[in-house]
Amino acid sequence: MSTYVLVHGAWHSGVEFESVAALLRADGHLVFTPTMKGNRPGDPKTTGLEDAIHSIVDFISENELDDVILVGHSYGGIVITGVADRMASRLRRLVYLSAFVANNGESLSDLVPPHYPDLLTSLGDGSVVLPFRIWREAYINDADLETAHRAYASLNPHPLNSFTDKLMVRTNPAMMTLPKSFINCTEDTALPHSFPLHPRLSEKLGLFRLVQTPGSHELCFSNPSRLAQAIVEAGRD
Amino acid sequence: MSTYVLVHGAWHSGVEFESVAALLRADGHLVFTPTMKGNRPGDPKTTGLEDAIHSIVDFISENELDDVILVGHSYGGIVITGVADRMASRLRRLVYLSAFVANNGESLSDLVPPHYPDLLTSLGDGSVVLPFRIWREAYINDADLETAHRAYASLNPHPLNSFTDKLMVRTNPAMMTLPKSFINCTEDTALPHSFPLHPRLSEKLGLFRLVQTPGSHELCFSNPSRLAQAIVEAGRD
Amino acid sequence: MSTYVLVHGAWHSGVEFESVAALLRADGHLVFTPTMKGNRPGDPKTTGLEDAIHSIVDFISENELDDVILVGHSYGGIVITGVADRMASRLRRLVYLSAFVANNGESLSDLVPPHYPDLLTSLGDGSVVLPFRIWREAYINDADLETAHRAYASLNPHPLNSFTDKLMVRTNPAMMTLPKSFINCTEDTALPHSFPLHPRLSEKLGLFRLVQTPGSHELCFSNPSRLAQAIVEAGRD
Repeated sequence: MSTYVLVHGAWHSGVEFESVAALLRADGHLVFTPTMKGNRPGDPKTTGLEDAIHSIVDFISENELDDVILVGHSYGGIVITGVADRMASRLRRLVYLSAFVANNGESLSDLVPPHYPDLLTSLGDGSVVLPFRIWREAYINDADLETAHRAYASLNPHPLNSFTDKLMVRTNPAMMTLPKSFINCTEDTALPHSFPLHPRLSEKLGLFRLVQTPGSHELCFSNPSRLAQAIVEAGRD
Repeated sequence: MSTYVLVHGAWHSGVEFESVAALLRADGHLVFTPTMKGNRPGDPKTTGLEDAIHSIVDFISENELDDVILVGHSYGGIVITGVADRMASRLRRLVYLSAFVANNGESLSDLVPPHYPDLLTSLGDGSVVLPFRIWREAYINDADLETAHRAYASLNPHPLNSFTDKLMVRTNPAMMTLPKSFINCTEDTALPHSFPLHPRLSEKLGLFRLVQTPGSHELCFSNPSRLAQAIVEAGRD
Repeated sequence: MSTYVLVHGAWHSGVEFESVAALLRADGHLVFTPTMKGNRPGDPKTTGLEDAIHSIVDFISENELDDVILVGHSYGGIVITGVADRMASRLRRLVYLSAFVANNGESLSDLVPPHYPDLLTSLGDGSVVLPFRIWREAYINDADLETAHRAYASLNPHPLNSFTDKLMVRTNPAMMTLPKSFINCTEDTALPHSFPLHPRLSEKLGLFRLVQTPGSHELCFSNPSRLAQAIVEAGRD
């Protein structure tokens, strides 16, 4: 039995990982799906990266979790790198799931194509959203329209500061001694395949285990059981 | 129920799409597999790109088709871009299947490695063929030899002009407002993987939906049912 | 019925191909799994590339094999190129399985990232080993830990000279008239995906047939039946 903490990506909350978590729990694992500061109902949308990281650090501390397989999806990859820098001794392995890998001093915005900010719609309260048209084609390309609509309706506006804040860590991922895995969803076009998450960012992990699965950036909606299997293969020793 | 028009590639005719069309029809769709000018029995082999495009435009007009999901295979990708430029209002979505994506002023010959013309054998009437040895290894690598022989026997000499004529469109694909999809067959080596169709050419579509499937450039012969499924996933809203 | 000779990679012997060979034999094929000079019990660990090549040449000669589908795994890809240069008339096809493709004058060391020699541990007798931690994550990433441990225990120290010796052939692979195939295991991270075996080295084969299969560099341990199927699809005419 392993302990998993699943850290969601931008526009998500822990709720969207519940169907994956249920599958892992049915296999006997202990699974947590915290929602980060900035994505909880009522959170100020000016929340930055440091507060998001601390909300996961606090969650792990308060629940006295140890030997944690810490999974970060997309933007959540930057968060788990920050968490690992602060509490590596409580972790067993880092799993980057279609995730950004940042070094010290890098923000998510530094790791995307230069035109990406123009794709976002600002809501005026510090948060941004991605238009459905873009999200449907590039993020959840493997689902039917009904699933895409239902999934989109579950998202929440995301604090822009957490994209532009630079990660502050003492140790870059490649130099961390924690074991690391990267799950690459082969139809993930959240970033263009000419400028991809894998191997462009995954190889910043140094030695890591690659797991690949068919599916889009939003496999948590389109195929939770395949995602659960990939997480097990990535998370095991 | 959707309306599909499947536009074949070089050396092909609509007949080779019939097994895929039958599967789509069994799912309740209306499916047409016209043969382009230049590939019909008796067509002059000096036919150029513009005539090929017009033969599809005419087919859609004469059959009074609307809301068409227009699928183009390989060379047919250049043709559907031309059709979309002329009659976008009759189309619902463009689906590029292992296809070339050309901008205004580009020919197919501009998009292949420089040594590719040397691989072709000229028949002296304006048409060219690809030797079986090359086609078997690089185009239909996923089939057994018997399937490869049977498939090769169904091909017809292709008018070289349609490869060298430059596409003339007012709007390049990335700027077209029509939804677009690209189906990438992961073992397609018609172009070398160091100089591939995807993402090198697919990303000229701007926002598009990626669908991937195992298989070669000639999936219509080697696995029609998988191709039919990919077309549905690429063609749906 | 075909005749296969399976040439193992570094740290391996023919024994580790036995489960794949058994599956091919059950299909009616004649299959041999020789162990190369340098990897047999008691072999001097100063053995070089030329001796390894000759041990396969001798095996084919002594067993009077003809029409051989010669499969080379990893380092074994360099060996089969050397064998083909010396006895092409006895061969039907070359199959490179997650393999290095060297031209005349190139060694394996010339084809890996510059930091790779630093990953190896020298045993002082001319042989090197790869630490389990690296091998488990980068070579057999698709297996569970128990399979990885059992597989690692079957490996033998590999003579470093065979990595640094330059291949001497009269004809480079692209110019050989023998048919050639390359099997790419899509989760093979023995080389980083930014500097991969395919297409970086596979395209040195000139015209070749690509077969892809999910799996790691060590598919012979993690999924012998999928490997056997890939070998059949790569080896057939």
